Amino acid sequence: MPMPTLAVVGATGAVGAVMCDLLSSRRNVWGEIRVVASARSAGRKVQCRGEELTVQALRPEVFDGVDVAMFDVPDEISAEWAPVAVSRGAVAVDNSGAFRMDRDVPLVVPEINPEQVRNRPKGIIANANCTTLAMIVAVAPLHREYGLRELVLASYQAVSGAGQVGVDTLHDQLAKIAGDRVLGSRPGNVRQAVGDDLGPFPAPLALNVVPWAGSLKEAGWSSEELKVRNESRKILGLPDLKVSATCVRVPVVTGHSVAVHAVFGTEVDAEGAREALRNAPGVILVDDPAAGEFPMPIDAVGTDPSWVGRLRRSMDDPRALDLFVTGDNLRKGAALNTAQIAELLAAELASR
Amino acid sequence: MPMPTLAVVGATGAVGAVMCDLLSSRRNVWGEIRVVASARSAGRKVQCRGEELTVQALRPEVFDGVDVAMFDVPDEISAEWAPVAVSRGAVAVDNSGAFRMDRDVPLVVPEINPEQVRNRPKGIIANANCTTLAMIVAVAPLHREYGLRELVLASYQAVSGAGQVGVDTLHDQLAKIAGDRVLGSRPGNVRQAVGDDLGPFPAPLALNVVPWAGSLKEAGWSSEELKVRNESRKILGLPDLKVSATCVRVPVVTGHSVAVHAVFGTEVDAEGAREALRNAPGVILVDDPAAGEFPMPIDAVGTDPSWVGRLRRSMDDPRALDLFVTGDNLRKGAALNTAQIAELLAAELASR
Repeated sequence: MPMPTLAVVGATGAVGAVMCDLLSSRRNVWGEIRVVASARSAGRKVQCRGEELTVQALRPEVFDGVDVAMFDVPDEISAEWAPVAVSRGAVAVDNSGAFRMDRDVPLVVPEINPEQVRNRPKGIIANANCTTLAMIVAVAPLHREYGLRELVLASYQAVSGAGQVGVDTLHDQLAKIAGDRVLGSRPGNVRQAVGDDLGPFPAPLALNVVPWAGSLKEAGWSSEELKVRNESRKILGLPDLKVSATCVRVPVVTGHSVAVHAVFGTEVDAEGAREALRNAPGVILVDDPAAGEFPMPIDAVGTDPSWVGRLRRSMDDPRALDLFVTGDNLRKGAALNTAQIAELLAAELASR
Repeated sequence: MPMPTLAVVGATGAVGAVMCDLLSSRRNVWGEIRVVASARSAGRKVQCRGEELTVQALRPEVFDGVDVAMFDVPDEISAEWAPVAVSRGAVAVDNSGAFRMDRDVPLVVPEINPEQVRNRPKGIIANANCTTLAMIVAVAPLHREYGLRELVLASYQAVSGAGQVGVDTLHDQLAKIAGDRVLGSRPGNVRQAVGDDLGPFPAPLALNVVPWAGSLKEAGWSSEELKVRNESRKILGLPDLKVSATCVRVPVVTGHSVAVHAVFGTEVDAEGAREALRNAPGVILVDDPAAGEFPMPIDAVGTDPSWVGRLRRSMDDPRALDLFVTGDNLRKGAALNTAQIAELLAAELASR
């Protein structure tokens, strides 16, 4: 059969741009690639695989002849348009939150549950949240080794998780504060220097950390914190997994980090855990504090794997491990995982 | 009796400067105040209580006639000189790590264990680590209510925890990166822009988070992480408390934050926990996410209390609470707690 046709919906966003980068650098399994966005962006040019592609407006006909449609758009656009793509014959791979917890939509991380790709009664496959992805790729091999029971998580999330407007907001704020060496040492002076333009965030990010991401849900939990819990359970196939997450935004451009306390069913040892991680796909072990080697956003940005380090067995519980994980939230956390799922579909089509 | 004489040793450092601020703004219980530092700083002038004081070089005679000597100096200086101050008749209140875990030295947080001040066989009282202090003031009232069993902690630590050189390093780095809007989005470009001057940190802090504070101890744990564990146990009088901490430095000037997962012996409820915190000394409850109210460094800096918010009962364990705490690491985390201990001693002297 000829090489399949791919549509990239949301091609002009922050994740869409990374997607086009990835399609240009990964082994090519695609015939035609169509780039799709809102009517506002139609006609713009996008570079992909060395070609200049013209952005098409999102409408039903754009999916005719498409085999796989990747969506990197807001929840409500995905909810409406992924089924349209399916009705036109495509399989939809969706990076929004619209379908992740739908029982009839698999939530796939190719390093962990690739077989779930075939279990798609709605023709839709969901991609996990960026915070879940960075962490789960590192936790899954440990789960296979020791049997995961509980996760306590604290995140250090980059501003690009809120899109290009998040990145612009942080750079604007840093430009305003640079040179004033008193800022951050007196109450309120950062708020005053930054002014009212907080972009998509509830507070200034420059010289600050903001313990909030997403919207308010039940009992004080944020949507981001519940996503991490629910998606971790679904991806690992552990419906009773205990998960407590605190999600915090930090002044980092790209690269979500998570401090992980993982409790297992059996005793763990740090060297055995390191060995499991050395052999795990999608993971790079950076764990030599004496040499200054631990996972950090400035190193992980622009790379594919989850960077994992700071492995320590709890001093008070032989079944618990503490570790630190950093991953590029636009790549593995979004575009890369979507591309990997699409490539599983391309292989399935090729094997028919 | 006349008002007691106080010596401030390390008066020219970052914490010493905050100490002089505090002595100028708190209810005055002191007669003479002597400011002391290394011979290098002797002769410098320091403002305190509206007076201009001349810094004296550290030598044994400087403690003659001193009732209380506060030390904000490196561990090895405290280890040598706190006993000297005692031998000259002073009680030493030490903010270094030199004596904190000494069985014969109480580790005092006046909101939690003020009675321990009198239990000082060596004439020395220790002040806790800045990361422990921000968190423990919020956790202690919950312990009294529900009986603490376990803490899982992830910190977001400000650069001033590494002294004025830490603050200067971050400002220097921010000045170098401001205006370049590509930085942080490509691997290695922050390292390149920042250059080799990392100050007291093992990696750049601008646009980064660094999962390391202190020195390497057994089994991959950092000294900072072990301090939080050991000091929490000692302050709360819980020698078997389970504690796992991951300590992370973030690009914040002043204000240490901690994401806390606390497991108790009995069921908790978030509203009861809020009520306990509302009535607790040294705590301010800021817990209204819908209104954008949660604890953050840019608000907590320059203030006395621990800011506490994001209270949530775990969805999977009715005995567990998640919360977020921010405190000024130079005030409650250092100078303020030291001043409070010294004031307990002043009251003791006055009551004789």
